[in-house]
Amino acid sequence: MWRHEEVRIEGIYRADRRDTFVTRSMESAELEYGGIPGDLHFGWTKKAGAREPMYPRGTEIFNRRQVSVASVEECTRIAEELGIEEVRPEWLGANLAITGYPELSRLSPGSRIIFPDGAGLLCEGENLPCIQPGKILQQRFPDQPQLASRFVKASRGLRGIVCVVEKPGPIRRGETATLAICRSRAENES
Amino acid sequence: MWRHEEVRIEGIYRADRRDTFVTRSMESAELEYGGIPGDLHFGWTKKAGAREPMYPRGTEIFNRRQVSVASVEECTRIAEELGIEEVRPEWLGANLAITGYPELSRLSPGSRIIFPDGAGLLCEGENLPCIQPGKILQQRFPDQPQLASRFVKASRGLRGIVCVVEKPGPIRRGETATLAICRSRAENES
Repeated sequence: MWRHEEVRIEGIYRADRRDTFVTRSMESAELEYGGIPGDLHFGWTKKAGAREPMYPRGTEIFNRRQVSVASVEECTRIAEELGIEEVRPEWLGANLAITGYPELSRLSPGSRIIFPDGAGLLCEGENLPCIQPGKILQQRFPDQPQLASRFVKASRGLRGIVCVVEKPGPIRRGETATLAICRSRAENES
Repeated sequence: MWRHEEVRIEGIYRADRRDTFVTRSMESAELEYGGIPGDLHFGWTKKAGAREPMYPRGTEIFNRRQVSVASVEECTRIAEELGIEEVRPEWLGANLAITGYPELSRLSPGSRIIFPDGAGLLCEGENLPCIQPGKILQQRFPDQPQLASRFVKASRGLRGIVCVVEKPGPIRRGETATLAICRSRAENES
């Protein structure tokens, strides 16, 4: 049922400025139910938006994207695809950046990230690309044509995952966490 | 991204007796954040058990199995497999029973069940078989050999799904709900 992999927490970030979704680096954070306190996406509930077309826009719903996690390896692939130097996790609005699991965006929902002090994240699935980070990239690399629109296609399947805080607790940059990968029935039967 | 199917709510149930997980039928219910008030599995959080081996047993964690949904068609398949007359959703501890989507247990995580009055459930994935319902079946059909142990194998991949309440609201027996099925990237690209 479960397969385990080790990953390194390369960065912890929070979107704590009123005018932008771009996150800023932190040494450590306290995961609480709802996410990282002070972060733009923190909360038990959220307002339904473009990603939840089954609800009228603005409806209060459960927040399943409390914490977003990016893979450093996938960020590198997006940068290569776009022909730019780098794509920083902060520019995607990521809360965590990890190395050691280059296929992060394909992590099966129901998988967990377990931290050394016992905190845990529950993977809710792939983070879907939106155009906003592309606009940030365009500001950073003004000489590159049409980065904003090219970003969505270039980052498809590489945007990392969204998670719910399953178990609160402290997390620190540089520590090693364990991925508990939920295997599908097909994998279990093979 | 989304494919839609109509399903009928054949039953609504609650485990509201202290000594059993077996549920009892209700005409209607009010879905709240955390599940169906008064139900055994109601709550924002739960104690970690055998299904969450990544946490010490008894740890307080987020409750991702607030509401369990069974498919009438899959219950029939379990009964056929076991050679018994019927398997009632109540005996599985189900909170909802639906018809119209015979492959319910394979519903992709991230899919939704949307009710006519706006309430919504978020699919967290397959409900894993446990031995308890088998013991109930054994009591009901005492002449059938080893139902308790045979149940786990017979019900694998047929036990329905577990859900989080994404949008609170009333639900009623007999109404038609919409499945919003989250298509995988592979399906989207084909």
